[in-house]
Amino acid sequence: MTTLWIAAAIGGLSAAGPVAGQTIYPINRAEILEGSRFDFKVEFPNAPTSADVTVTINGKAPAEIFGKATTFMQSEEGQKHSALWLRGASLPAGNYVVEATQGTNKATVKWDVFATAQPRRAKNVILFIGDGMSVANRTAARILSKGWDEGRYNGELAMDDMSNMALISTSGSDSIVTDSANAAHAYTTGHKSCVNALGVYCAKNALTLDHPKVETIAEVIKRRGQMAIGVVTNSEIEDATPASMVAHTRRRSDFNDIVKMFHDVQPDVIMGGGSPNFLSKATPGSKRTDEQDFIAKFKEAGYTLATTKTEMNAAVAAGSKKLLGLYNTGNIDGAFDLRLAKKGTISKFPDQPDVVEQTRAALDMLKGNPDGFFLMVESARIDKYSHSLDWERSVFDTIMLDNAVKLAKDFAGDRNDTLIIVVPDHAHPISIIGTYDDDRPGQLLRDKLGVYAESRPPNYGPLDAEGYPTKVDTSRRLAVVYGSYPDTCDTGRPNMSGERVPAVKGPDGKTNIANEKDCTGPLAARKTGNLPFDANSGVHSADDVILTAMGPGAEKFRGHKPNTYVFRVMAEALALGGK
Amino acid sequence: MTTLWIAAAIGGLSAAGPVAGQTIYPINRAEILEGSRFDFKVEFPNAPTSADVTVTINGKAPAEIFGKATTFMQSEEGQKHSALWLRGASLPAGNYVVEATQGTNKATVKWDVFATAQPRRAKNVILFIGDGMSVANRTAARILSKGWDEGRYNGELAMDDMSNMALISTSGSDSIVTDSANAAHAYTTGHKSCVNALGVYCAKNALTLDHPKVETIAEVIKRRGQMAIGVVTNSEIEDATPASMVAHTRRRSDFNDIVKMFHDVQPDVIMGGGSPNFLSKATPGSKRTDEQDFIAKFKEAGYTLATTKTEMNAAVAAGSKKLLGLYNTGNIDGAFDLRLAKKGTISKFPDQPDVVEQTRAALDMLKGNPDGFFLMVESARIDKYSHSLDWERSVFDTIMLDNAVKLAKDFAGDRNDTLIIVVPDHAHPISIIGTYDDDRPGQLLRDKLGVYAESRPPNYGPLDAEGYPTKVDTSRRLAVVYGSYPDTCDTGRPNMSGERVPAVKGPDGKTNIANEKDCTGPLAARKTGNLPFDANSGVHSADDVILTAMGPGAEKFRGHKPNTYVFRVMAEALALGGK
Repeated sequence: MTTLWIAAAIGGLSAAGPVAGQTIYPINRAEILEGSRFDFKVEFPNAPTSADVTVTINGKAPAEIFGKATTFMQSEEGQKHSALWLRGASLPAGNYVVEATQGTNKATVKWDVFATAQPRRAKNVILFIGDGMSVANRTAARILSKGWDEGRYNGELAMDDMSNMALISTSGSDSIVTDSANAAHAYTTGHKSCVNALGVYCAKNALTLDHPKVETIAEVIKRRGQMAIGVVTNSEIEDATPASMVAHTRRRSDFNDIVKMFHDVQPDVIMGGGSPNFLSKATPGSKRTDEQDFIAKFKEAGYTLATTKTEMNAAVAAGSKKLLGLYNTGNIDGAFDLRLAKKGTISKFPDQPDVVEQTRAALDMLKGNPDGFFLMVESARIDKYSHSLDWERSVFDTIMLDNAVKLAKDFAGDRNDTLIIVVPDHAHPISIIGTYDDDRPGQLLRDKLGVYAESRPPNYGPLDAEGYPTKVDTSRRLAVVYGSYPDTCDTGRPNMSGERVPAVKGPDGKTNIANEKDCTGPLAARKTGNLPFDANSGVHSADDVILTAMGPGAEKFRGHKPNTYVFRVMAEALALGGK
Repeated sequence: MTTLWIAAAIGGLSAAGPVAGQTIYPINRAEILEGSRFDFKVEFPNAPTSADVTVTINGKAPAEIFGKATTFMQSEEGQKHSALWLRGASLPAGNYVVEATQGTNKATVKWDVFATAQPRRAKNVILFIGDGMSVANRTAARILSKGWDEGRYNGELAMDDMSNMALISTSGSDSIVTDSANAAHAYTTGHKSCVNALGVYCAKNALTLDHPKVETIAEVIKRRGQMAIGVVTNSEIEDATPASMVAHTRRRSDFNDIVKMFHDVQPDVIMGGGSPNFLSKATPGSKRTDEQDFIAKFKEAGYTLATTKTEMNAAVAAGSKKLLGLYNTGNIDGAFDLRLAKKGTISKFPDQPDVVEQTRAALDMLKGNPDGFFLMVESARIDKYSHSLDWERSVFDTIMLDNAVKLAKDFAGDRNDTLIIVVPDHAHPISIIGTYDDDRPGQLLRDKLGVYAESRPPNYGPLDAEGYPTKVDTSRRLAVVYGSYPDTCDTGRPNMSGERVPAVKGPDGKTNIANEKDCTGPLAARKTGNLPFDANSGVHSADDVILTAMGPGAEKFRGHKPNTYVFRVMAEALALGGK
C-alpha cells in the first residue's frame, strides 16, 4: 500500500516546460543517438496558424533536415496551442540548433546527435539497477554480509570491486527529485524527461500515449540486429524500471498498455511479478479492461511461460530461449521474507525465484546468442522497502542485488566482451548513525542509541552461504535512519511480522497518521512527519548516486555525469549508432 | 557550543580492544609503511611476570626482528596488566605474524609491512579534506553554484571532474561511526585507531600522551627528506584534522600539547584559527596552562606570523617560506558568513582569509621547494555546520572547498607531478528531499514541501564571481534534511542571524531541549530528537564517503577502500618507504 501512495503522489500530470512561449521536443541539450527514432514536436501557445510561425533546424526547414514532411495541427486536440509534428524522425550525428519563431518570440534549443565508434566493443551489456539504492545501502550491506572487525570489512561487495566509478545525478527535466519512471527512462533512452513518464517527453497532449516518443535501447537493438534482450525484476514487470525498456507513456501506471508494449518489443526474457495485467478481463484475477489474453499472445510468439522457480529452471533446462516469467500477482517477495521472516506473500507463492536465481536463468538463456545480449536486472524492492522505512528489508535486497552482480562477474570472467554496470536510479535519505544496544540504560529508543565510540558493531547472527545474516532481531543492531517520513513510530527493531507500514489513513480518510501497531512497543519512538499529509511513506532524495562498472566501455565512467550518460556509454559499447 | 558537545561526547576514554586476553599493538591487519616508526606494545591481563608470557614475531623474539631490545613492565602504571614495549620500532617490508602467549591463551595479529616502488612518482601531494562532506553536500553545492536547468547542471564541480573515484569506509577500530580525529589519523598514518585518538593506538595507558604511537606522514617526510609541508584549515589549528598531521595523543582536546607537537614537527606552512593555545598563560586571552610562548618559539624557528589576510598576503609577497597564520581565536568564519550573513565573528576579525585564499598563499609559499611539497587543506566547517543542522552554511563551505580544489587543479595543470586527492573524513545523515515553496498552500513547513514533480528548482539569487548564490533566503529553497537531531525546531529557512543552534541545555542543566528561538517562526516545525539527551546537535554517519583524485598515483583509487588506503597511495606516490 506504500507503493500505491507513491504511484498516486507522482501520478498528477503537472505541466512540464515553460508556461508561456514555444516548447520544442526533444528539449534543449538533448543527447540523441545517431539514427535513433524520436518524435519531433514544437508547441506554440495561443493556437496560431502555420503562417504565424517558423521553425528551422540549422537554418533550414525541418522537412529538409529530416527528409520527411512535418504536420501542423492548429489548436491541437482543441487545446489552446498549435503543434508542429514529425513522428519517427532520426538524424545523422552533428550539432543541431532548432529555432521556433512566433511573432517576436524565438525559442532555441540545441541537440547533440552523437555517433558511436566502430567496431563494436562489447558483445554483451548487463545493466543492474538497484532501485533507490543509496550509499548507506551499500555500507549496511557490506556490514551485514561481509562482516566488520576493528574497522575493516572481511570482504568486498561484488558491486564495489569494479574498475570504474562515477557520481550520477538523477534529476529529471521538471524537478529536482526524480521518480523511478523518469530515472530509468534516462538510462534506457538517453533523454531527460519528467516525473511519471516513460519513453516520452512531457508535452501538452491529453492522452498519455500521445506524447512525443523517444526510442528505448531495447527498440534500437531490435531494429538494428539480432542481439537478445532480457528484462528481469522482482517488482511487477509493468512497473517503472522494467517498463522503461519498452514503454512510451506519460503515465507509468498504464500497466495494460505497458504489457502490450512488452509484446510489441518482445524482449527474449521477461521476468518479474504482475501477472494480472496479462490476463483477459474475463479471467478471474485479471486487471485488464479488455479481452486481450497476453499469456496466449506471448505463447503464440514462442515464449515459454513460467509461473514458479521450478518452471523457470525447467524452461532453462529445456533450452528455452524465450521466456515469460510471472511469479507473483504483485511484486516478488524480497530476500528478507524469502529467507528469514517468511511473511509477505510467501505462503501464497511458495516457489518464487529471487533476483539471483532469475539472473542465473536469464544468463543461461541469453548467453548462447551469437550476436550477444542486453540484460537489465532490477532489484526493485531496495526502493520499495525504503519507502516503507523498512531498512532491513531494503538492505537484504541490496545484498541480493550484489549476489546477482557476482554471478554476472563470474559470467564475464576473462571474456573482456561484457560491460557490467551497477547503478541506482535515485537515492533515499537513509543513513547509519550508530547502533541500538538494548543493554544501554534508559527506557527510550534514543537512550539505546550508541553514537561515536559507543556505536559498537552489531551482533547479528552468523552468515548463511549466500552472505545473509541468519538473525537480525538481536540485542545490538545498526541504527539506520530515514530523513523523510510521515507521522510514524520507529520501533528500532526489524519487523519480523511483515513489511513495515509506517502510516495509515486517519479518520478524515485523507490525512495519514502513524500506524499505531508500531507505537506500542517498549522502545517505540513517535515521530511527527516532515512530509506533506498525503504522504504515507518516505520519499526519494535528489542526492547523487554511485555507479560502478567494468568491462569494455566502463572506462568512460568517471567524475560526475548526468543519468543520460549511462545510455550513451551502453550505446557506444554496442555501437548502436548509425541508420 | 555545538562543537563543545561533540568534543565532550567523544571525550570519554572508552576501552578499546577485547576486554580479556592479550592485546597487541599495532592491531590485526595493520598496514605499516616500510621503515616508518611505530611503538610496539603487548598488554597482558592480570599482571603476569615476563616469565609467564611469550611474544614472537614470525616465530622469533621481537628484539631479534626489530634489532632493538624490548622492555617488560609488570603491572604497568600500577594497573592490572603487564606490558611489553618497544618504542620507535620499524620493519622492512613483508608479512608478519605476531603471537602473544599467556598460559593457554594465544593472541595473534598479522601485519602487512609494505614497500613503496621507486622512482617516486609524485613531486607534490595535495590532500583536501572536506570534513563531514556527504554526497548531498556535493549535490547541493552543484545545484547552488553551477545552476540547474531541465535536470542538467550548467557546470561541473572541480572536485567531481577528476580521473579517479573510490568509495571510502571510515569506521575506526572501536566503532562503526568515527569522529574526525580517528578518521584524519587514518589518512595521515595509515592505521585504524579509535574515536578521539590522533597518532596513537588506544591502549590501557593512563596518560593521553603515553599510548603507542605511529608516525604521521609529516613526520615521515621530515625524517626522510627536504619536502615542504603545509597544513591549512579554517578550524582551530589544534582541531582534529590539522592536528592529525603532527599529533600523538589519545585525547584530541589536548590542544596545548598539540601546539607543541606542531612546533616539534615544524610544517613549513601552518594556517588556521585557534591562537589562544599559542600564548603563554600570562598573556591575556591565553588558554595555555604553562608559560611557554609558542608565538615566540615559532618566530625563533624562522616563521613569519600572520594574524590577518593582509599579513598573510604580505608574507607571501615578501617571499616567506615558513608561515604561522592564526587568523581567529576560534574557528575562521565560514563562507556563508564571510560573504552573505556577516555574522559569527566577522566584526571581531574583519580581515580573515577564507580557505581559497589560504590555499593560494600556501601554494605560493610551497611551490618553490625543489623537493616538492605535501599540503593538507581542510574545509572544516562543512562538518561543524552539519552538526548545527545548518545546511546552507555547510554547503557554502563545500563550494569554498571546491574553489580551493580548482586552484590546486590550475596549479597542477599539465605538470603531471602533483597528486590531488579530495576526500571527506566521514559523512553526516544529510539529504535533499525536495524544495520548500512558500507559495504552496498550507500553514506548516511540511505543507510547503514539494516532492517529486513538485520539487521545482530553487530560486536563489544570481551567482557571484566565485559561484556563490548572492541570495538564499528566497521563496523556493532546497529542502535539506538531517537524519539525526536532538529536540529541535526546523525553520526551513537559512539562518541569517548566525550559525544555527539546534538545541540548548534544559532546566535540569543536563538534558538538551529545542532552542525556542527557532520554534516561533511561521513555519517552524518542532522535532522530537532521535539522539540521546546529552546530544545538542547532529551526529556523524557511518555511510561511505566519495574520494576523487587525479595526478600520478590517482589510478590506484577504485572500488571500495578503507580510509587507511589513502595514506598508502600517498606514501607510494611519494616513495616514502625504506629506512
